[in-house]
Amino acid sequence: MIAEIICVGTELLLGDILNSNAQFLAQELARLGIAHYYQNVVGDNPERIKQVLAIASQRSQILIFTGGLGPTPDDLTVATIADFFNTPLIERPEIIEDITKKFAHRGRPMTASNRKQALIPQGATILPNPIGSAPGIIWQPVADVTIMTFPGVPTEMKMMWQETAVPYFQNQGWCGETIYSHTLKFWGIAESALAEKVAPLLEMKNPTVAPYANFGEVKLRISARAESQELADKLIVPVEQQIRDIAGIDCYGINDESLAAVVGKLLLDKGETLAVAESCTGGSLGSMLTSTPGSSQYFHGGVIAYENQVKISLLDVNQEDLMVEGAVSHAVAKQMASGVVKKLGTNWGISITGIAGPGGGTDSKPVGLVYIGIARFKDEVESFEYRFSPLRNRDWIRRVSACTALDLLRRKLYWSNVKTTI
Amino acid sequence: MIAEIICVGTELLLGDILNSNAQFLAQELARLGIAHYYQNVVGDNPERIKQVLAIASQRSQILIFTGGLGPTPDDLTVATIADFFNTPLIERPEIIEDITKKFAHRGRPMTASNRKQALIPQGATILPNPIGSAPGIIWQPVADVTIMTFPGVPTEMKMMWQETAVPYFQNQGWCGETIYSHTLKFWGIAESALAEKVAPLLEMKNPTVAPYANFGEVKLRISARAESQELADKLIVPVEQQIRDIAGIDCYGINDESLAAVVGKLLLDKGETLAVAESCTGGSLGSMLTSTPGSSQYFHGGVIAYENQVKISLLDVNQEDLMVEGAVSHAVAKQMASGVVKKLGTNWGISITGIAGPGGGTDSKPVGLVYIGIARFKDEVESFEYRFSPLRNRDWIRRVSACTALDLLRRKLYWSNVKTTI
Repeated sequence: MIAEIICVGTELLLGDILNSNAQFLAQELARLGIAHYYQNVVGDNPERIKQVLAIASQRSQILIFTGGLGPTPDDLTVATIADFFNTPLIERPEIIEDITKKFAHRGRPMTASNRKQALIPQGATILPNPIGSAPGIIWQPVADVTIMTFPGVPTEMKMMWQETAVPYFQNQGWCGETIYSHTLKFWGIAESALAEKVAPLLEMKNPTVAPYANFGEVKLRISARAESQELADKLIVPVEQQIRDIAGIDCYGINDESLAAVVGKLLLDKGETLAVAESCTGGSLGSMLTSTPGSSQYFHGGVIAYENQVKISLLDVNQEDLMVEGAVSHAVAKQMASGVVKKLGTNWGISITGIAGPGGGTDSKPVGLVYIGIARFKDEVESFEYRFSPLRNRDWIRRVSACTALDLLRRKLYWSNVKTTI
Repeated sequence: MIAEIICVGTELLLGDILNSNAQFLAQELARLGIAHYYQNVVGDNPERIKQVLAIASQRSQILIFTGGLGPTPDDLTVATIADFFNTPLIERPEIIEDITKKFAHRGRPMTASNRKQALIPQGATILPNPIGSAPGIIWQPVADVTIMTFPGVPTEMKMMWQETAVPYFQNQGWCGETIYSHTLKFWGIAESALAEKVAPLLEMKNPTVAPYANFGEVKLRISARAESQELADKLIVPVEQQIRDIAGIDCYGINDESLAAVVGKLLLDKGETLAVAESCTGGSLGSMLTSTPGSSQYFHGGVIAYENQVKISLLDVNQEDLMVEGAVSHAVAKQMASGVVKKLGTNWGISITGIAGPGGGTDSKPVGLVYIGIARFKDEVESFEYRFSPLRNRDWIRRVSACTALDLLRRKLYWSNVKTTI
């Protein structure tokens, strides 16, 4: 059985809302092992809805509609579907009763326009809506085509999906092998370079391996179609291990693990602590680190040294170096990192100073130039220069700078662990 | 001319990513007055991409593809389109040169797999990608069908759209009556309360007024269909003024203005400066403030006082108050705010201390309890208590706490301006 998603709503064509319903349904179909090859969006227009219906009913067997079940004149999904299959609409008293009750609960009378929501194609089953006034339908108008309709309101759609649609699919025996997946995450390697390293794996069929990239991060998703998590793991784990062996330290984590959480785990393992000194990132690095619950065990805090005077007064940066070398320099990055370690008494300090743009760049110090300092205690300090593309925007440069800083510390912690255990 | 959006990517069918590209393109087409009746999502599968192409090229004249332009084997959008129209692919040396340059800038050699990205159907024009390695194409393979391809990476797609596609549409004379809109932004009022206040305006036809809400922020979008910005403004501006009059100070800005940018403008107008002291937000408030270019004119920096010792050593918080009242208390919020003002020598100081969860809550101090301190110079200090729902997650509580702090300062700056001018 192949499913197809059809989202109805002019607001989607105007871009007024993000189509999160399609994502939810797609995730659910994958989870249930129901194949699904196409998604459609169409406006509240009977002729065009019928066109989509004609195409979808030729290539798919389960047509999942969202949207257009409301009480207003532009809500015409159910009437259009009935018309397409030349079937009359029947007013269902149980729906009238249900809507009346729901309105009474809110202390309001049912309005005339809601009466329309009780019209259901002859022969269709009601797909109950536990929250809102718009019920859906489950209907097999012709052999090999089952139609299900859901309201566009995500909370209602999701509840109806879980309560009625999922058990229905299971009872019909339509759920097959499910897709399980592990996503490996990488920092410090380009998507193309990684893809070349693991090229033969990208050709596999089960599991499949697919690369994604965004904001300097690369991911490889290993997906297996199997009857259980256990059987899927038997397919996925060896491939995952192969990729980890090939990628080495460039692979920093899996699934929901963030760079900040991985760094936190490494610090926790060693019983070490961290502080940050941020200029151009203005707190973003601290924000990333503290987005992990429990980060107070290894992250003590830091200084947002946006203005030069703060670098001097709170981090003991040398005034002359600030004047001569400039705030964006190796010298200042190093002093910021060792300064914050000294002031906060942590094992590690990370500093970031750079030009995030759009203004502030010069020929010798262009937008995208960033220095990252790493201090271990106050005396062991290094700094690293990065030249990110000046075409990237301020947000990108700040975010990638913070992640790069985390990755530098991650590698240092990793190697110092390796040394210790050897 | 009718456009149609075709998003290619198995990750969309698996629900791995939200289709924000479709929303962006839909908004843009509406803005440009180019009709668009259908959106499609299809996987990285040549036969199915061709099926969609066959249908779309019959009913639409501008086919806008996103996704599948990368260097890996599953990126096959351009090759499939060329194959559908029986056209050979030609390697374009200017693309090879461009990719080589981009890799050189990052100090990396171009990999063999990127070579594929230089293959363009014979007769197609290159749609340049100023940031990434994947260029798009503009191609009219048959009369009445123009194909444009964009990468799936949103930042790259958007820049290519703005820089090349929009001027191209305008030059071709394909843009019609356009939708123009202003989006008013609100903080400190619930969506339903605002909707009730402006209820009659929500019924209008041109302009329309539509509410949206997310992360504690409410927006009203006023959209007019008109032949020019000037004519649209004649419809929009009176409604905008009406809403501003009704909403008063709850309306903080318009369109892309962020709360942080509005606060920055108010500080700049008064020639005043700000510093922050963050506990549970861990740098998020500083990050928001510095996301505005030029924020160094009024934002000096701050202290991420995540651990209690940092509150004492860098912000002069009283150790006994920390012990007796606890870190999450009026007393500590006040001392953090006045401490950072004193240490950084700014006019204003904001502090945030709270329990973001999921752990760390108690009966008397539950998850969601947040204190925000505001100090003007070091002696004039107040603090405010918030009890956000413990059902909200850590990210939500941190983000809304930072925005609430900005909004508090915004109201203070606003009223002090009013007092000055009276």
